[in-house]
Amino acid sequence: MSDIQDIIEIAKRRGFFWQSSGIYGGVSGLYTYGPLGSILKRNIISAWADSYISIGALMVDSPVIAQEDVFRASGHLERFTDLIYECSSCKFRQKFETLLEGTGKGVPSSAEEAMKIVSSSGLKCGNCGSDKIAVTDFNLMFPVGTVRAGESRLFLRPETAQGIFVDFQLLIRQNRDKLPLIVIQTGEGFRNEVAPRNAIIRLREFSMGEVEVFMDPESHPFTPDSSKEPVNLMDRDGKNMALPVSDALSSGIVADPAMAFFIQKTHRLLTGLGIDPGKLRFRQHRRDELAHYSSDCWDAEALMDDTWIEIVGISDRGTYDLTRHQSHSGKSMEVKIGDKTFIPKVLEPAHGIDRILMATLVHSRRVTDKGYVVMSLKKEIAPYKLAIFPLFKKDGLSEIAVDIFSRYSKIDPYCIYDESGSIGKRYARQDEAGTPYCVTVDYQTKDDHTVTIRERDSGKQKRILIDDLVSGPVLGNKYVISAFD
Amino acid sequence: MSDIQDIIEIAKRRGFFWQSSGIYGGVSGLYTYGPLGSILKRNIISAWADSYISIGALMVDSPVIAQEDVFRASGHLERFTDLIYECSSCKFRQKFETLLEGTGKGVPSSAEEAMKIVSSSGLKCGNCGSDKIAVTDFNLMFPVGTVRAGESRLFLRPETAQGIFVDFQLLIRQNRDKLPLIVIQTGEGFRNEVAPRNAIIRLREFSMGEVEVFMDPESHPFTPDSSKEPVNLMDRDGKNMALPVSDALSSGIVADPAMAFFIQKTHRLLTGLGIDPGKLRFRQHRRDELAHYSSDCWDAEALMDDTWIEIVGISDRGTYDLTRHQSHSGKSMEVKIGDKTFIPKVLEPAHGIDRILMATLVHSRRVTDKGYVVMSLKKEIAPYKLAIFPLFKKDGLSEIAVDIFSRYSKIDPYCIYDESGSIGKRYARQDEAGTPYCVTVDYQTKDDHTVTIRERDSGKQKRILIDDLVSGPVLGNKYVISAFD
Repeated sequence: MSDIQDIIEIAKRRGFFWQSSGIYGGVSGLYTYGPLGSILKRNIISAWADSYISIGALMVDSPVIAQEDVFRASGHLERFTDLIYECSSCKFRQKFETLLEGTGKGVPSSAEEAMKIVSSSGLKCGNCGSDKIAVTDFNLMFPVGTVRAGESRLFLRPETAQGIFVDFQLLIRQNRDKLPLIVIQTGEGFRNEVAPRNAIIRLREFSMGEVEVFMDPESHPFTPDSSKEPVNLMDRDGKNMALPVSDALSSGIVADPAMAFFIQKTHRLLTGLGIDPGKLRFRQHRRDELAHYSSDCWDAEALMDDTWIEIVGISDRGTYDLTRHQSHSGKSMEVKIGDKTFIPKVLEPAHGIDRILMATLVHSRRVTDKGYVVMSLKKEIAPYKLAIFPLFKKDGLSEIAVDIFSRYSKIDPYCIYDESGSIGKRYARQDEAGTPYCVTVDYQTKDDHTVTIRERDSGKQKRILIDDLVSGPVLGNKYVISAFD
Repeated sequence: MSDIQDIIEIAKRRGFFWQSSGIYGGVSGLYTYGPLGSILKRNIISAWADSYISIGALMVDSPVIAQEDVFRASGHLERFTDLIYECSSCKFRQKFETLLEGTGKGVPSSAEEAMKIVSSSGLKCGNCGSDKIAVTDFNLMFPVGTVRAGESRLFLRPETAQGIFVDFQLLIRQNRDKLPLIVIQTGEGFRNEVAPRNAIIRLREFSMGEVEVFMDPESHPFTPDSSKEPVNLMDRDGKNMALPVSDALSSGIVADPAMAFFIQKTHRLLTGLGIDPGKLRFRQHRRDELAHYSSDCWDAEALMDDTWIEIVGISDRGTYDLTRHQSHSGKSMEVKIGDKTFIPKVLEPAHGIDRILMATLVHSRRVTDKGYVVMSLKKEIAPYKLAIFPLFKKDGLSEIAVDIFSRYSKIDPYCIYDESGSIGKRYARQDEAGTPYCVTVDYQTKDDHTVTIRERDSGKQKRILIDDLVSGPVLGNKYVISAFD
């Protein structure tokens, strides 16, 4: 079984995520995060947000619904499209590129060109075999119906970024009219995918964490530090290398110091979340794959099932968005700093939260000698930090364990109590859930007020006084730390 | 100016929230949370989530898009409607009840009845005066367009609750097949409001925090404790009283111990967030205002501008939702516990996050003798916990302040540095932002490594060693606490 398929199975069994509304057959590309996954996702988002707020970023939270004008200006109305074909016999719809598989033909750049291929190659509907197929440019935004006559058409946003660009002047005022201005936003994005797949990897509703860095390209503080940690890079010619980011900058592989700074920052964030640095690379877009708004882009890609999957894209959007909004709205998007009046340039590290979460799961999974799965999630993002068990339900052990649980969960609610099944099964369950510490109450507890604390990754067990355990959250607890030193 | 209007003005100026996409004229009922508001909202949601996770709740996160089948079963397709009229002359649409204002007539219960009122009373279009108006039952869900032919219709969810009900069997399995099962979910809900108003109070896209408590009505642990704190209650006959929740239960004013428990819990959560207990009441729904799924409901209402505004609804949904989903999907929603097989009953505390946020702002606002506004937000939910200033930019004071800022923000990123304007203005700015502590670097700092720390609410200033300040987050910092003891 592939790593991804294995994680999808564990995810459903253990409650990380599953396809939504299964009782009605579900909808492709819509997933629900369960008890473990929803907390894991929240922790990943918090780590991401904190890492940017600590360098002075402002956070915003704009609606997922926005008006047509926004997407006309951003270019999404015109260009956020896939070529699809519809069969007029059976009404079947599919991505046009699916029909091309095995023909050796490349994906055409317009519906017109596609129709030429249809006639010249005699392509037929993949469902019923009819040749009555028509190819159209299908916009991937979800339109949203509304009640008010005369109101602008509404859409679900394909990215959170536009909610930042349209309010740029309000945001720079909140930044005391200074550059750089870093604005972050997390929330849902939507893409009316014709072919959702791989569970949370290609969704129709997904979770994003976008960062818009507005700067004066000639004067900004962003440059990588001199850390010697090597980072895997693949340039636009397909050349692979592993070197410190500062070297990549000085040798011109990464052209822009700000781009280099955010590659370094992203690398630290992702490896800090538990993504294996050996299975992480930054790949520069080829010129022919750059989005319409972008002049340079480096994708952070994580290796899963021998495939490199984009999890973050760091894109140089230049002045594209602000210029477009200025011309479409008639409102100035310029800033005046000192004697200089200009439209700031934008660098955008855009994070796919669901894919980052998938990568942390895939890269954290290890199988023990006995065949059990352990999710070695970083302690900081693990959904629950501590599980508390009585060795047996009898002889008053449950009562002691419940009491410890109730004292501890006042300090840190992300704690689980479990008394069902053998102690081995309970450890195994918490290992699969990624819980870093388990505590067991046994007969010795009654004599000396100690419990056994077990560390997930080392498997080591130590005894610790109950009062020391409940003196603070287990992650920063000095007694726990010193026990496993 | 009303309190709400005043907050709306402060909110835009200081960056709590504003109408989205103002450069394109905006869309009614769509608001963006700015730098302060987005963090405040996140802190409120975390406080809410933690308070439920600490009593064993599971969290989920389901998509905002769901298929028609879900809402056919839930009753929303049929009943989540407003009566609106459309004028066939000018195409104007409005809520029908707006036309009735001043006529003394009550809102009819169906479009048919409404049309009788139109003909008998000669009602005319509010826009053009034509009598060619037709009243219809307008569904308040937003339909979402989709690409796939044959796929079920999709809608934006009007509440997060259905995402929990449809996956009930997966969730109870995650709860080790035990009751009670408490599931919480936060995220956006949508309502295609005909008349959005009062900024974030009546939105078309809003933020919810819903709790679904699945229980055996005959055997559950929920009953209020014996706290003597009085809670304002208004029963369904309109009688007002203030008494401890346990007394309200024993005297039969609140009939159900679980309802009483969640009233008490909600009261603690809301007052803990800074809502004034004197401006908070729990009002029981009259029988004629209960939602179609509800047999009893107590709304937490906050007083703003002399109006009681619902901020939480605690509703007894009974077995309505699970029974409907069982019959519509053909999948069992029963649980087997011991010898008993049954559909659990559901109690639902549903929190309007935007309105709770508005109430915390309205109730935290105070005006000083000098006419300055201070937002006395509870320290735990204040967006930023600490601001750091140099008294002047010169003489090396900035450098020292920047250094303290950089040390402190590694411990707690929710910290602001400000060096612009007079020190009085900077204090005033932070007071309006609700920042509980400000630290100023002055000439004495150079001699003795102390800074002045000022507490927002008392206005008191003390000196504290820099090393003590940066020894931990300011909120739990023992040196800070002892300084203001």
